[in-house]
Amino acid sequence: MNGPNLNLLGKRETSVYGNKSFEEYFVDLKKKFANLNVEYFQSNIEGELIDVIQQSHYDGIVLNAGGYTHTSVAIRDAISAIKTPVVEVHISNISARESFRHESMISPVCVGCVFGFGLKSYELALVYFA
Amino acid sequence: MNGPNLNLLGKRETSVYGNKSFEEYFVDLKKKFANLNVEYFQSNIEGELIDVIQQSHYDGIVLNAGGYTHTSVAIRDAISAIKTPVVEVHISNISARESFRHESMISPVCVGCVFGFGLKSYELALVYFA
Amino acid sequence: MNGPNLNLLGKRETSVYGNKSFEEYFVDLKKKFANLNVEYFQSNIEGELIDVIQQSHYDGIVLNAGGYTHTSVAIRDAISAIKTPVVEVHISNISARESFRHESMISPVCVGCVFGFGLKSYELALVYFA
Amino acid sequence: MNGPNLNLLGKRETSVYGNKSFEEYFVDLKKKFANLNVEYFQSNIEGELIDVIQQSHYDGIVLNAGGYTHTSVAIRDAISAIKTPVVEVHISNISARESFRHESMISPVCVGCVFGFGLKSYELALVYFA
Amino acid sequence: MNGPNLNLLGKRETSVYGNKSFEEYFVDLKKKFANLNVEYFQSNIEGELIDVIQQSHYDGIVLNAGGYTHTSVAIRDAISAIKTPVVEVHISNISARESFRHESMISPVCVGCVFGFGLKSYELALVYFA
Amino acid sequence: MNGPNLNLLGKRETSVYGNKSFEEYFVDLKKKFANLNVEYFQSNIEGELIDVIQQSHYDGIVLNAGGYTHTSVAIRDAISAIKTPVVEVHISNISARESFRHESMISPVCVGCVFGFGLKSYELALVYFA
Amino acid sequence: MNGPNLNLLGKRETSVYGNKSFEEYFVDLKKKFANLNVEYFQSNIEGELIDVIQQSHYDGIVLNAGGYTHTSVAIRDAISAIKTPVVEVHISNISARESFRHESMISPVCVGCVFGFGLKSYELALVYFA
Amino acid sequence: MNGPNLNLLGKRETSVYGNKSFEEYFVDLKKKFANLNVEYFQSNIEGELIDVIQQSHYDGIVLNAGGYTHTSVAIRDAISAIKTPVVEVHISNISARESFRHESMISPVCVGCVFGFGLKSYELALVYFA
Amino acid sequence: MNGPNLNLLGKRETSVYGNKSFEEYFVDLKKKFANLNVEYFQSNIEGELIDVIQQSHYDGIVLNAGGYTHTSVAIRDAISAIKTPVVEVHISNISARESFRHESMISPVCVGCVFGFGLKSYELALVYFA
Amino acid sequence: MNGPNLNLLGKRETSVYGNKSFEEYFVDLKKKFANLNVEYFQSNIEGELIDVIQQSHYDGIVLNAGGYTHTSVAIRDAISAIKTPVVEVHISNISARESFRHESMISPVCVGCVFGFGLKSYELALVYFA
Amino acid sequence: MNGPNLNLLGKRETSVYGNKSFEEYFVDLKKKFANLNVEYFQSNIEGELIDVIQQSHYDGIVLNAGGYTHTSVAIRDAISAIKTPVVEVHISNISARESFRHESMISPVCVGCVFGFGLKSYELALVYFA
Amino acid sequence: MNGPNLNLLGKRETSVYGNKSFEEYFVDLKKKFANLNVEYFQSNIEGELIDVIQQSHYDGIVLNAGGYTHTSVAIRDAISAIKTPVVEVHISNISARESFRHESMISPVCVGCVFGFGLKSYELALVYFA
Repeated sequence: MNGPNLNLLGKRETSVYGNKSFEEYFVDLKKKFANLNVEYFQSNIEGELIDVIQQSHYDGIVLNAGGYTHTSVAIRDAISAIKTPVVEVHISNISARESFRHESMISPVCVGCVFGFGLKSYELALVYFA
Repeated sequence: MNGPNLNLLGKRETSVYGNKSFEEYFVDLKKKFANLNVEYFQSNIEGELIDVIQQSHYDGIVLNAGGYTHTSVAIRDAISAIKTPVVEVHISNISARESFRHESMISPVCVGCVFGFGLKSYELALVYFA
Repeated sequence: MNGPNLNLLGKRETSVYGNKSFEEYFVDLKKKFANLNVEYFQSNIEGELIDVIQQSHYDGIVLNAGGYTHTSVAIRDAISAIKTPVVEVHISNISARESFRHESMISPVCVGCVFGFGLKSYELALVYFA
Repeated sequence: MNGPNLNLLGKRETSVYGNKSFEEYFVDLKKKFANLNVEYFQSNIEGELIDVIQQSHYDGIVLNAGGYTHTSVAIRDAISAIKTPVVEVHISNISARESFRHESMISPVCVGCVFGFGLKSYELALVYFA
Repeated sequence: MNGPNLNLLGKRETSVYGNKSFEEYFVDLKKKFANLNVEYFQSNIEGELIDVIQQSHYDGIVLNAGGYTHTSVAIRDAISAIKTPVVEVHISNISARESFRHESMISPVCVGCVFGFGLKSYELALVYFA
Repeated sequence: MNGPNLNLLGKRETSVYGNKSFEEYFVDLKKKFANLNVEYFQSNIEGELIDVIQQSHYDGIVLNAGGYTHTSVAIRDAISAIKTPVVEVHISNISARESFRHESMISPVCVGCVFGFGLKSYELALVYFA
Repeated sequence: MNGPNLNLLGKRETSVYGNKSFEEYFVDLKKKFANLNVEYFQSNIEGELIDVIQQSHYDGIVLNAGGYTHTSVAIRDAISAIKTPVVEVHISNISARESFRHESMISPVCVGCVFGFGLKSYELALVYFA
Repeated sequence: MNGPNLNLLGKRETSVYGNKSFEEYFVDLKKKFANLNVEYFQSNIEGELIDVIQQSHYDGIVLNAGGYTHTSVAIRDAISAIKTPVVEVHISNISARESFRHESMISPVCVGCVFGFGLKSYELALVYFA
Repeated sequence: MNGPNLNLLGKRETSVYGNKSFEEYFVDLKKKFANLNVEYFQSNIEGELIDVIQQSHYDGIVLNAGGYTHTSVAIRDAISAIKTPVVEVHISNISARESFRHESMISPVCVGCVFGFGLKSYELALVYFA
Repeated sequence: MNGPNLNLLGKRETSVYGNKSFEEYFVDLKKKFANLNVEYFQSNIEGELIDVIQQSHYDGIVLNAGGYTHTSVAIRDAISAIKTPVVEVHISNISARESFRHESMISPVCVGCVFGFGLKSYELALVYFA
Repeated sequence: MNGPNLNLLGKRETSVYGNKSFEEYFVDLKKKFANLNVEYFQSNIEGELIDVIQQSHYDGIVLNAGGYTHTSVAIRDAISAIKTPVVEVHISNISARESFRHESMISPVCVGCVFGFGLKSYELALVYFA
Repeated sequence: MNGPNLNLLGKRETSVYGNKSFEEYFVDLKKKFANLNVEYFQSNIEGELIDVIQQSHYDGIVLNAGGYTHTSVAIRDAISAIKTPVVEVHISNISARESFRHESMISPVCVGCVFGFGLKSYELALVYFA
């Protein structure tokens, strides 16, 4: 699950994020974890992310909440409310960026956190579930 | 009016919140206040809550903004912009929870606040309007 | 139970608080809740409020601790020490006033809180106990 | 582009904001800048604002993010991600209002900022692009 | 009016405060302001100070609230509630002492403040009323 | 000397504090320190504690100021004003409790501090004076 | 009106600020606003800026207070004291620079603020007065 | 001695400060304290105030440092460096104004402080020296 | 590489950490990553950890700095000084523990961070290097 | 157990700490508590203190962690990890010293704390264990 | 270059600063660095210091900004704007004085800093340039 | 005396620190100060630095405590405990780096401080002792 602006991956700031879109990367990811049933959802709307978290019928969620990571009490509450374990991922090393990105509202209610490894962060999170 | 995750009431964490959904509770509430025309709206999307607040044609709003309570300047502005009095309610005692739940962005622009009485908080708020 | 300066209600600042004293209001309140045995105590002295809280043999306390609300660890400890449920009330909307009135020392150990409804705040609190 | 509650301009609090709606004002604005192709979008939903920012095919964006100005990391990230220059405007003098309105999350990633001139703020921003 | 520990003046720490008790000093003060009807009250109990402030039938109060200066919302509320002007005095220069003595809870609701002139602070305050 | 709510020891929350009242414990204490002339005073009123501290004619004071520990500048001033050494005690480990209990207003003017040893804290304090 | 160090424009750090001095730019500005009587004053001395603000006999002031923007209560008081409207401008986007430049002491008493548009910021401010 | 903007007294904001200039008031003051040799100096320039403080050959200085009160380490150092006692005065009750006016840089090095009594504050300060 | 107290794994607090020592776990880890040359070092001494980081001749370091994570500028400097990439791991979810564990001194200079997955955190880190 | 710099006792700053070294004092201590098997360890190295805490085979530890008291998460973790009760002692009254000495990292995980009684602090701690 | 109050050196507080004026000391300094062309400027006026910094045609500036050190963004900007390297000096150890003297506004834009060595601080700074 | 990571000088990050090791530089330094008996000690272990400070039999210590500068109460206490004057040096301008490097724990107990001059900082410090 991806939060706001992550739909732009591969289209912009390609010098930073590479020119592979998340959709292309996702094809590779599904191959690597062929024995898992991996699905993908992205939205820029906080409430739609909450809707999907609530309806989750999976064994686990890999969540990059983008900019909502640092502000959303509502997403935190959604994660607390469900039993499905959630792993928080970030492409960049958020602790090395602006100070308002150091604190994550959702980390305390996630199982664990993986950040800083680029797109590979998603893969490490899936290794945990595999 | 209920904000994010309050649609889960009665379905999850039943040991904490009881196994009655807000919809069931709402039936009771309508009976108790038969002389009032009480309506119910819930959304996980901050902007939809603002839409409904703006269009309010009622004599009063009972609002539990859930996780948006602590972060939403936009909902605060919507309440300030209308003349309908708004009463803030919370099911739990927010001052006894995590420190980021102690401050409410919307309290200063509401008529008053009722919190900590479980679902009964809504009832007390309606007594005010009755 | 009323804390400091609430004995002045109806005598001063009548444009703000109306010209009804708490004693007059209390007569109405007793009538409205005729089936409850409601009693009233007021003191400007922090320690006397603690004395009465400790000796409480009632089913519930409705407490407006006035200025001690924001500073008294001792009243908080008294409420924690007894089993009688305490409901915190305030006549004004404390979150819309000076910043030192936003934090209440006693909220976390009370059952719930009702504030901003004028003298009607006491009535809502009694509805909870009724 | 206008954020939450700015659709109420001219309808409410007319003593403060005048009784001209943004739509009426926008007609004047288009006339004044007849040589520019000016378009208007408003939403109360944070994610929809992000959607439009991302798809921007214009030479510049004039953005009043309303209440999201002070809280939205996600809108900030959207502005950072695109190449179109964004000018931040506010109708009121935000530095003369409540302290939580003093800090803007999006200013650091905008070209510049114009605030406090009433609806004329939009006009000054367009002069920049003209 | 004097608050807590000011009854010790002249008895202890005479090197700092001199060996004249406030009672002795008060005799001099009454002589100097023979045309005023000056009275004196001291208590170590916060609530008793409030009682006396509330019942004030004088044209002005000179108040040294001692240690309660920095903590008492209740005394502040009492001063706000009455119409009698109150002048705050301190014997020592509170801004040159520990940091918790720099902020006074009652200054904002007093007419003015005189501090640092030793016992002479009371005299300057009376000059104002004279 | 004991401050607010310590008169409840042994009567309530016996699972935490045991079912021995301070009065009973005090009998044991007097026996253990038979060669000392030990006396006991308790009050819930801040100003009465100050009264007794001021009049102290003993060689030392063992003081558990309860909830006033964290807020009372006035008790601090009383301790500073007298020559009798004061030892601060607490039954519980205050540094392991809520953050507002971590800072003591009176520690800096006491000889020393003993906390966390249950009722035994008083005994250790008396060993110092013995 | 320009504050400290703005006399260096065009002479140093030309890669950042261009090699046009403010004097040269001012000639252009006067031409563009030929129907306005525009005058220019610069000083590195805080008190001289205050002197000129006080004596202002114009219809408006465009003020770039340079480094005094973030520290000068005295310039703020001067602006408050006069009736002439003042517009605050900055060449750079101060919210994107060091944190001590984010807060402006003078913004709350100015009509509005324009910053981040380079020397063009002055032009936008004059459009407001024109 | 008066700091920045105090030369405007009586000329502007007369509803607040009255229509008497400091110069007129000073004539009255000299009469009242005919036995003292009272002189007056005003400057908007911080360094000129320091110059005069340093050269002081008087028995005492009455200083209203205006806006420099809250920011000037340099004036503080000048006061510390001389032996002449300095009394700080303010016309308004600075503790009842904006929070950045609550802290005075110079109070800790002055003899005492008088504020909130309007122009009468100067008179009270002179009573101290008389 | 493991920092202070991690030598106790499996010996104490087995209900939390399981009864497998890190040494036992390390055997499994070596098997799983048989194609990597994995070595293990533990010390309770901050400076010894720095010594080993400096001498690192490996392709990567997996570092759990234990309690030094939150305080050690010196370890941070060591990581900055070398070219070998370092991955930070924690067994527990540090963001869900005491507030002083939320900030990591070393995260900003590491490649990435993995925490909250128990001993499996080390495995995910090695997947990155593999 | 003593932390850094406590090996200097009696050798330096004898006016403050007396001219008895801890070793000499320790001889007295052993005599006084002849029925206890008391041992002594001192180190300036944080990690060595942790080593000894971990290997503790005693019934209790009396720990003066010196300067590490205020900074060491690692020592705190070591105390948490063992079952042996630890009593924290300080020779001086740390709450009356610099502000960075007011907070102790290790108090919350110790049984209790004794400070301010000079070397006698150790004796009181042993009374607890005796 | 010397800032405010440094013209008083040797005239006042001679027990602290010695009875040598800076002018006398400067004669010695010129002798010691005979091969350098050393000049001296002092002013109490912030803007005059900026004027001189801007016009600097030397190879280096040794600057003791006195009380402006801690408040002057304008002096900082002047130093940033020129290419001449500036060394910051202080006679006293500013980190051992009041907390408002710990932070220097100008250090980050100076080459380096020398403080605490009395007048010798200037000499060390000149050694750097020599 | 050098603290952690300073043993890497000249070996790594040579673009920043040059390719001269501290050992090579030390040879030059000894030559320059041939009349002084200069010795060199480096350790990455906090406690070892304390050991050496305690045993100091020199006339002065030049200390670069590296990363321990900002965290070590223990090194501060060691410096306080000895009579040998200590001069603090830093190679880089610590006030121009990350905010956690702005505050030094040891500055207040050192004679003075020299920083920002590269390796030349050591030389300036020795000039003081010479």
